[in-house]
Amino acid sequence: MSYQYLSYSVLRQFCVDVFQRFGFTESEAYIIQDVLLSSDLSGIESHGIQRMVRYHKGIEKGMIDVHAKREIVFETPISAVFDAHNGMGQLAGYYAMELAIQKAKANGVSIVTVRNSNHFGIAGYYAKMACNQGLIGLCCTNSTAIMVPTYGRVAMLGSNPIACAFPAEPNDFLFDSSTTVVTRGKLEVYDKMQIPLLEGWALDKDGHPSTDASDVLANIAGKNGGGIMPVGGNKEELGSHKGYGFAMLCEIFSSILSLGCTSDECNINNKGGICHGFMVINPALFGDAEQIKQHLSSYLCKIRNSPKAEGQTRIYTHGEKELEAIARAKAHGIPVQDNTIMELSNLCDYLDLDFTEYFGEQFLNFKDSGYTSQYS
Amino acid sequence: MSYQYLSYSVLRQFCVDVFQRFGFTESEAYIIQDVLLSSDLSGIESHGIQRMVRYHKGIEKGMIDVHAKREIVFETPISAVFDAHNGMGQLAGYYAMELAIQKAKANGVSIVTVRNSNHFGIAGYYAKMACNQGLIGLCCTNSTAIMVPTYGRVAMLGSNPIACAFPAEPNDFLFDSSTTVVTRGKLEVYDKMQIPLLEGWALDKDGHPSTDASDVLANIAGKNGGGIMPVGGNKEELGSHKGYGFAMLCEIFSSILSLGCTSDECNINNKGGICHGFMVINPALFGDAEQIKQHLSSYLCKIRNSPKAEGQTRIYTHGEKELEAIARAKAHGIPVQDNTIMELSNLCDYLDLDFTEYFGEQFLNFKDSGYTSQYS
Repeated sequence: MSYQYLSYSVLRQFCVDVFQRFGFTESEAYIIQDVLLSSDLSGIESHGIQRMVRYHKGIEKGMIDVHAKREIVFETPISAVFDAHNGMGQLAGYYAMELAIQKAKANGVSIVTVRNSNHFGIAGYYAKMACNQGLIGLCCTNSTAIMVPTYGRVAMLGSNPIACAFPAEPNDFLFDSSTTVVTRGKLEVYDKMQIPLLEGWALDKDGHPSTDASDVLANIAGKNGGGIMPVGGNKEELGSHKGYGFAMLCEIFSSILSLGCTSDECNINNKGGICHGFMVINPALFGDAEQIKQHLSSYLCKIRNSPKAEGQTRIYTHGEKELEAIARAKAHGIPVQDNTIMELSNLCDYLDLDFTEYFGEQFLNFKDSGYTSQYS
Repeated sequence: MSYQYLSYSVLRQFCVDVFQRFGFTESEAYIIQDVLLSSDLSGIESHGIQRMVRYHKGIEKGMIDVHAKREIVFETPISAVFDAHNGMGQLAGYYAMELAIQKAKANGVSIVTVRNSNHFGIAGYYAKMACNQGLIGLCCTNSTAIMVPTYGRVAMLGSNPIACAFPAEPNDFLFDSSTTVVTRGKLEVYDKMQIPLLEGWALDKDGHPSTDASDVLANIAGKNGGGIMPVGGNKEELGSHKGYGFAMLCEIFSSILSLGCTSDECNINNKGGICHGFMVINPALFGDAEQIKQHLSSYLCKIRNSPKAEGQTRIYTHGEKELEAIARAKAHGIPVQDNTIMELSNLCDYLDLDFTEYFGEQFLNFKDSGYTSQYS
């Protein structure tokens, strides 16, 4: 795998144009690109623009409805349930979090859930939206079943990430983590590199530990059994039931509280059915928000400055790695895999956009025989 | 280690009497025993009556103030911050959750935090209080620093449990889990049995993995460095930063939002300083509460009935193991270690209570040379 470094500002315009060609309005396209590129900027390639082609396929299959009208099916001053009606996940997520922020500003706290949505990118994006306004943001989502519960052999839960963002100095605290030990993207990378998975990551179709990436991925795709372990592995001794429990919390705050599809029912028969959950809390519910912010900042600083394990030079607090990746990407460009560049270049041909107009002629050789959508 | 089986109803009366001798009122003593014995009944021996002597020492040292007057230092209709003023953790926890339930019943949701408290027993007890009234209960606490952050070598976070209880049939969902891979109690058991710890549990004073229970425990006690790993271990490859992140969420919802002591400052210089967090959510904020309950119940049932890993016969959903332990203990008595019986018998002498009056004469031989409080 080799990487090219593409300019953030050019990629932005490119994404906005592409999503408009998909049928979204300019403002919608802007939101979607912001979620995707925030992921690429943060170094989370798996949830960034490399998914554009997948989203395009989702639209063509009818799994993602470009013209979906979100509907509030239940509402109180501090809560709401959205039905996304199969719309784009990023739009469902953005507007649900916007509503949650508005309600928390008015009433101190809010919880908004969403059903019948699609993959929404990184959960941290939405948590950060609240944090950018001085509020505590929490976000979770369910997803295609890929996590096998402790002692099981069939995936019944998603990778089910939880994100929490809390204002702090010099950098906000931002925790964003799947509750599986690793994500499917990591398995795909190991598969491409043809190296064995780490012990403690994945299970074969009978529920035994497996280090064979290609077998595990094939079983996941074919729904033959097996999948990824919860954080904590597949035995209670190392806390498997804990990771499985945290994944259940995601399920509760997304699918259960929206009366939507649980992970085992998501992305089946051409229906996404993904559910999300958003919570916003005003820290001023607990006293002086600035004092609370300083209290967290000082604790984070103490942790970072605490003695390191022999051989280690740094203890990170959550959010630091992403911020450093953002600074690098803004200075030197966003790293994009050759594979992804080829896909995007072909997508451009298909959409009648000129890829070289955005990124110059150096990528002409990335074009292959022409992009034909799998479903057209 | 050998166990005796003591009657639940006799133990209740015994605990109420003992805590009254400690100086608590009858109703306070009743609450404390209920938290402790709920733990023993559920099979969580580490947080049950075996801690009575430790609480007694805490009172004698002045770390726990029997006559502490809890004070609400900040309040809104949906939130409150308690200062427990060094009171008994179980009382702080109980009354904070009571207030949270009351506020959630009135306003749909509530968050109450507590500072300057002490060890409060099992977090699940308080989450279950809300659940018993048809509400969603969440609870977390910080604790003595014992978790070493990823790449560190000094404990900066507690075992920091998170509990969530949600009404379901036939049994409520009850997740209650420390965010360390195991608790200190587990290390103590391995130490007593003189067998090596599992790989992936603990770190020595330099931050290297260690399987030497007695060395790790001595370092923890002496604050020499080392401690227990987060769930996910000590490397990012298996998700160490995830367990560390979940522990940070506990810290945020306990010490940070109460402006209290963070775990690294707890139980130092004869001051507990422990902080707790409680959240209650009315499921009716999201539609028909009964329908939501059925939705979760059906998902839990599907998970339990999903195919098992080869060689496994059962998939548990969270809360089942505890319920089965409760049924066993109510039928056959609560298992109490000989060691604990000796401690309790000696404590009785010290408090001028007659141990044999509660449990019969068969425990007379458990008495040793007389209980002398370490601090009297």
